[in-house]
Amino acid sequence: VNRLTIVKIGGEVIDAPRQLSKCLQSFVAISGKKILVHGGGKTASQMSVRLGLTPKFAQGRRITDAETLMVVQMVYAGLLNKNIVAELQMSGCNALGMTGADANMILAEKRAVKDVDYGFAGDIKEINSAMLLKILKAGLVPVFCPLTHDGRNQFLNTNADTIAARMGSALADSYAVEVIFCFGKKGVLENEADGNSVIAGITKKSYQLLLQKGIIKDGMIPKLDNAFQALSNGVKKIYIIHADALEKLNQKIAGGTSGTVLTLD
Amino acid sequence: VNRLTIVKIGGEVIDAPRQLSKCLQSFVAISGKKILVHGGGKTASQMSVRLGLTPKFAQGRRITDAETLMVVQMVYAGLLNKNIVAELQMSGCNALGMTGADANMILAEKRAVKDVDYGFAGDIKEINSAMLLKILKAGLVPVFCPLTHDGRNQFLNTNADTIAARMGSALADSYAVEVIFCFGKKGVLENEADGNSVIAGITKKSYQLLLQKGIIKDGMIPKLDNAFQALSNGVKKIYIIHADALEKLNQKIAGGTSGTVLTLD
Repeated sequence: VNRLTIVKIGGEVIDAPRQLSKCLQSFVAISGKKILVHGGGKTASQMSVRLGLTPKFAQGRRITDAETLMVVQMVYAGLLNKNIVAELQMSGCNALGMTGADANMILAEKRAVKDVDYGFAGDIKEINSAMLLKILKAGLVPVFCPLTHDGRNQFLNTNADTIAARMGSALADSYAVEVIFCFGKKGVLENEADGNSVIAGITKKSYQLLLQKGIIKDGMIPKLDNAFQALSNGVKKIYIIHADALEKLNQKIAGGTSGTVLTLD
Repeated sequence: VNRLTIVKIGGEVIDAPRQLSKCLQSFVAISGKKILVHGGGKTASQMSVRLGLTPKFAQGRRITDAETLMVVQMVYAGLLNKNIVAELQMSGCNALGMTGADANMILAEKRAVKDVDYGFAGDIKEINSAMLLKILKAGLVPVFCPLTHDGRNQFLNTNADTIAARMGSALADSYAVEVIFCFGKKGVLENEADGNSVIAGITKKSYQLLLQKGIIKDGMIPKLDNAFQALSNGVKKIYIIHADALEKLNQKIAGGTSGTVLTLD
């Protein structure tokens, strides 16, 4: 089975141009089939403010009303995604920038309103893996921004971690998939106050213990829930690393040189 | 040889939502392989003004400085292109929105500064027809916004008529190509003041006469120059029609029901 690497770069990497460039160069160097998924960062909020809108958040997630969705669409699909594509192309990586609407790649449904109305936020229903395979086989490198669609002419703002994890699950039958989450910390930390207290490896079993002890909490929980779901669906290995560590990881992918490695057991 | 239809929709169609929807529905109904190329319209200028920038034009063409390019990229690639993709997907047309940087599809070079400095305006060097053929064969319908790249991490604003014509030329060896330019008039007019004075057919020879008599002038000259270049390169037929006429044209493609038909002779 051929290897497929899915790299997700978080919003904090998008917001740091030099770190982003370095991370993209490391991505170019990855051999075999690959997919890039990127988050949003602060540009959409900044653009909203310039346009006289007030960014709204609940529990750390953006509330996407119609005007905000327009801004998010411009910034994610037009500005950030295409800037990444042009930079990858310069380095000889045949990138193809996409939203979930393009090639009907990611079908989602608007999140039901419970305590909070997140507006046009979407939860993934289906990844179009047949078409994704065709695109990969054509030699293209898909680059996804965190937008999906509902198939009824509505874009939906969707978490990039979830896109990366679900895409890994969808392709696990066709490739030996590894997913790498690049963000601003060195890995999953034992002690949030100590940036170097990286937990080297987490299994499904040890994850339950870390949850019980309250060591893993807040924003890391959905990230790791996503990750272990993908592992259960056949993804081989998942890395959670600092964006700057992508280069080293390439050189010694199985060496555990840095960051946190997640495996089923 | 299989048929390929390239439809270009002008900025004035983009600016009229109901006309755009009708035109997209007609596009969906076209059988065989197809490509959509769209212009920009007024949204980019409106967005520039909202962001405190002053849109600049010379001889009817936008002057694209760095800040304007950012706005154009957001509006063309993020807003307009993706809105069209989502609407086509709703109608079961497997659209894939692209700039010229995506899949390295359109390589261009920055226009040399002569009388006017158009800024980041690009003239097409090469269409990546090999990859375009792969994408068409995968069953996808490429939708291009009027942005190209120089392969060195620079987007360039590029005329959508030229993109459609050059794409037709590039694919004329592989398909029987027809190009349809949809805009706000009924065709090429004999008398600009009379919207119904449509010239039914123009050949390469009669085009020269119309130019000499001054009947074809201004903005129509580059449009028709592009068109006859494409015909010389092997494109079978080119239509210049009102956006509302695309539906009728589908029903009777060779009937000359409306608009202007261009042929070599």
